[in-house]
Amino acid sequence: MTQFINKKENIVTEAVDGLVRASGGQLARLDGYPHIRVVVRADWDKSKVALVSGGGSGHEPAHAGFVGKGMLTAAVCGDVFASPSADAVLAGILAVTGPAGCLLIVKNYTGDRLNFGLAAERARAFGHKVSMVVVDDDIALPDLPQARGVAGTLFVHKIAGALAEQGENLETLTNAAERVIRDTRSIGMSLDTCTVPGLPREQRIPPGMAELGLGIHGEAGVEQIAYDGAKKAIETVVAKLATVMGNKPHAVLLNNLGGTSTLEMSVLANELLLSSIADKLKLIVGPAPMMTSLDMRGFSVSVYPIDKDDETLLGAPCAPSAWPGCKAVNPVTLRELPDGLMPIQPIPSWHEPTANFMTRWCQVLIDSETDLNALDAKSGDGDTGATLAGAAKALIKALDRMPLSDHTQLYRAIGQELSQTTGGSSGVLLSIFFTATADAASSGLPMVAALKEGLNRMQQIGGAQLGDRTMVDALKPALDALDNSLFAAASAARKGAIHTSTIVKAGVGRASYINAEQLKGHIDPGAEAVARLFEDLVV
Amino acid sequence: MTQFINKKENIVTEAVDGLVRASGGQLARLDGYPHIRVVVRADWDKSKVALVSGGGSGHEPAHAGFVGKGMLTAAVCGDVFASPSADAVLAGILAVTGPAGCLLIVKNYTGDRLNFGLAAERARAFGHKVSMVVVDDDIALPDLPQARGVAGTLFVHKIAGALAEQGENLETLTNAAERVIRDTRSIGMSLDTCTVPGLPREQRIPPGMAELGLGIHGEAGVEQIAYDGAKKAIETVVAKLATVMGNKPHAVLLNNLGGTSTLEMSVLANELLLSSIADKLKLIVGPAPMMTSLDMRGFSVSVYPIDKDDETLLGAPCAPSAWPGCKAVNPVTLRELPDGLMPIQPIPSWHEPTANFMTRWCQVLIDSETDLNALDAKSGDGDTGATLAGAAKALIKALDRMPLSDHTQLYRAIGQELSQTTGGSSGVLLSIFFTATADAASSGLPMVAALKEGLNRMQQIGGAQLGDRTMVDALKPALDALDNSLFAAASAARKGAIHTSTIVKAGVGRASYINAEQLKGHIDPGAEAVARLFEDLVV
Repeated sequence: MTQFINKKENIVTEAVDGLVRASGGQLARLDGYPHIRVVVRADWDKSKVALVSGGGSGHEPAHAGFVGKGMLTAAVCGDVFASPSADAVLAGILAVTGPAGCLLIVKNYTGDRLNFGLAAERARAFGHKVSMVVVDDDIALPDLPQARGVAGTLFVHKIAGALAEQGENLETLTNAAERVIRDTRSIGMSLDTCTVPGLPREQRIPPGMAELGLGIHGEAGVEQIAYDGAKKAIETVVAKLATVMGNKPHAVLLNNLGGTSTLEMSVLANELLLSSIADKLKLIVGPAPMMTSLDMRGFSVSVYPIDKDDETLLGAPCAPSAWPGCKAVNPVTLRELPDGLMPIQPIPSWHEPTANFMTRWCQVLIDSETDLNALDAKSGDGDTGATLAGAAKALIKALDRMPLSDHTQLYRAIGQELSQTTGGSSGVLLSIFFTATADAASSGLPMVAALKEGLNRMQQIGGAQLGDRTMVDALKPALDALDNSLFAAASAARKGAIHTSTIVKAGVGRASYINAEQLKGHIDPGAEAVARLFEDLVV
Repeated sequence: MTQFINKKENIVTEAVDGLVRASGGQLARLDGYPHIRVVVRADWDKSKVALVSGGGSGHEPAHAGFVGKGMLTAAVCGDVFASPSADAVLAGILAVTGPAGCLLIVKNYTGDRLNFGLAAERARAFGHKVSMVVVDDDIALPDLPQARGVAGTLFVHKIAGALAEQGENLETLTNAAERVIRDTRSIGMSLDTCTVPGLPREQRIPPGMAELGLGIHGEAGVEQIAYDGAKKAIETVVAKLATVMGNKPHAVLLNNLGGTSTLEMSVLANELLLSSIADKLKLIVGPAPMMTSLDMRGFSVSVYPIDKDDETLLGAPCAPSAWPGCKAVNPVTLRELPDGLMPIQPIPSWHEPTANFMTRWCQVLIDSETDLNALDAKSGDGDTGATLAGAAKALIKALDRMPLSDHTQLYRAIGQELSQTTGGSSGVLLSIFFTATADAASSGLPMVAALKEGLNRMQQIGGAQLGDRTMVDALKPALDALDNSLFAAASAARKGAIHTSTIVKAGVGRASYINAEQLKGHIDPGAEAVARLFEDLVV
């Protein structure tokens, strides 16, 4: 089994129960399991015209996901890709129909037409007012007199649903639904078939091909075409729609057939809203899964020419969270990039002792390249020495651009330099250390306290704690001892570095994935670098 | 290519533009393409604390889909599964941060921590108040000190978002976010890997196996386990969560990792809300795709212990349509099946002439079985004769249960009998014909007019027009001539039947899929049956 289901014969009852349980009390179902699977609005009082839809399952969220105030009153759920029985439809009609009557919204498949049709007759025999409309929006097979009903059905649900909520009568609703059906056109495209529960997945579409003009039951599309990216896919679909669209503004519905990622759907939305019909697209519903074909990696586009009233009805609030809303299409609104992305260049200033100090420390790192690489090879990818030596060389080269006489600004400038010249995590972490130190210093902290705050921030972001076998194990004790003397700091750094050779479990970074025994006896390269820098101050 | 994308390097910019165009003007983006991909609330005035999140792309709708009033202020989008640069994050922060400051919500991945962390430091250097929280809700690797951030991040977005909208200050927001992070736990399971654009799909999970404890970047799960249906899948996941849940009521978030069908997600929701932790689950978010891993067929469950305030904050309205709402968990609400599903049995009454008439007509159909089957074999599956003969036999058998002396009731009873005894489309269509005729007759129409109304309804539902090569081609002219004489009706029926043999294109039903030339010269079996019935009346 490759799907999250249990027994095939229980899929629909279990899915309906899942939907009802998670509906926040908005939905209920008829007590007619296993054969009668009807989801109804929990708050329904029969005071308005009821809207009943349904059909085979496998199209979720259609139809039960669209039951709720402002859309459907009830949905009748058949087995996967099979019409519900006339009995089940009748149960749905009788459960929700009051004196205002009931509108059945049916997709144009023989089974659905017949079972909904028969149920309508039987409900009328009870004295109920029942209308039935049949959606046939698919334009894939232009010569077929009986076009299929696909995702355009959502326009009917929403517009009729909003009118029903307003209290319009059955005749008005039926006329409105028929008008929407007359003018709605849809077509779909897919890159793969769907997985019908209990059946092996059909491998019908070869790699590099797409199917155009497909239904929502896994049936083959009208033609297989070469697939060449999202732009051409939309162009192909739009070319079909363009032939049946007039010049009115349209609402467009971009439907995920089930297995297309949300990322891809946004790419398709972009192409659609840039396509040759874009100037006619005033409103958009989706992209979202609305009328799916199980897990099919495909999409469909439905168009409907709107007038002012339609706009209001499509935009009216409704309860079902599966309805993604109907939004105005807009060009991309751009905001200017904020100032300050290019960091302010510090004003260079010379200060001989600082220049000498920095050069000396940088030289320590340059001289340690081979040793540190060797240590890193025990636990990482052997490049700590090269990374630090590279950073040191870059800093020496940048000395005459540095604000050497203002140490707060200098820390900031070092942070900036490192973020631009040093790759990997170390570059970012050291940059954070120096930048945060500058930040703390500029807020008035004395230098040692500012350095501790810099370390603190680096730890927060990098996540390294004392004992995690990183440079923190040397740097933290060194800074803690720095108020006493440089000698105490150097001694603490060395002690901390040696301690890392006894830590057999690294807490962060790549070393954390290494077998513990391999680490034993080797000092962490970052801690060793820190120890060498402090030791250099006291030799 | 097996995905709806164009060039790999443009996926994110195109998807962001698609999202912005279809947002109804709610979203804008910074003018920083191609490297800076930042989506911002179009209505943002910097009067409150800004919430900035983001990370690699491929997790849609996270994060840009959650930008909007009541959730995020901005989202910074990296390449697929790669952190955005510190520059991009800084651009996002600077674009939306006012005097109230900014909260960064980061998932615990090294690249994200470092780049968001560095950007925070640089924003602070500009004098901005910036806090950063790191989400680490994944419990798949309990020994890893740095747990990953996955779908539980949504709880942080929603709760912090609602507090920010209320005007709370940065410290309150930061504390609240840290509290949510501390208490949120997540774990995922998948039946397949994901398709990373530009890479072949890794075939890592053998059929019949699932991966438990996976991240959201296609990385392997902690373990592969035998997969045995949705119920056990939920049991496994829930067992892990149960060990870290206290006794408080919880909110649960059921996330689609991208490629699971909506039908399956509802089955999983049902199992989750029936599972051993169900009594602790008070609120539910989803099921919905929220934090996806491209098109992965998997799900994750996140739990968070709520207090009264959390409940309000999680339920507060917000603009992003990708947020599926947070709803109360309820047992399934059942509604009684409506009365009337078992049709009222007519009161039997005897009327000799009617009984004779019906028996005679039924015998015509029984005698025609072989001929009609043979005609049907030319265009369909050769069972029209058998179907009609079966219906005729059933009616004869039911005669003594029929209201023979009340013709209106009789039509209704025949309709009912046919719907129960006759299979396929013909049974339903004939049932509709008789039921609708009864309906029309009981509203006062004379019998011939009522029969015409019955035919009309059958045509509406079955979709067959005159000339579509069905029984309508004989029945309609016969009924039209019936007011003149029985002889005229019989003659018209025969003429109509013969005409079907010249129709080479069938409009509805299975015959519509047949090669035109095959139909030529053969009378439609339904039309032939009608002609024989009427002819029988005049011999």
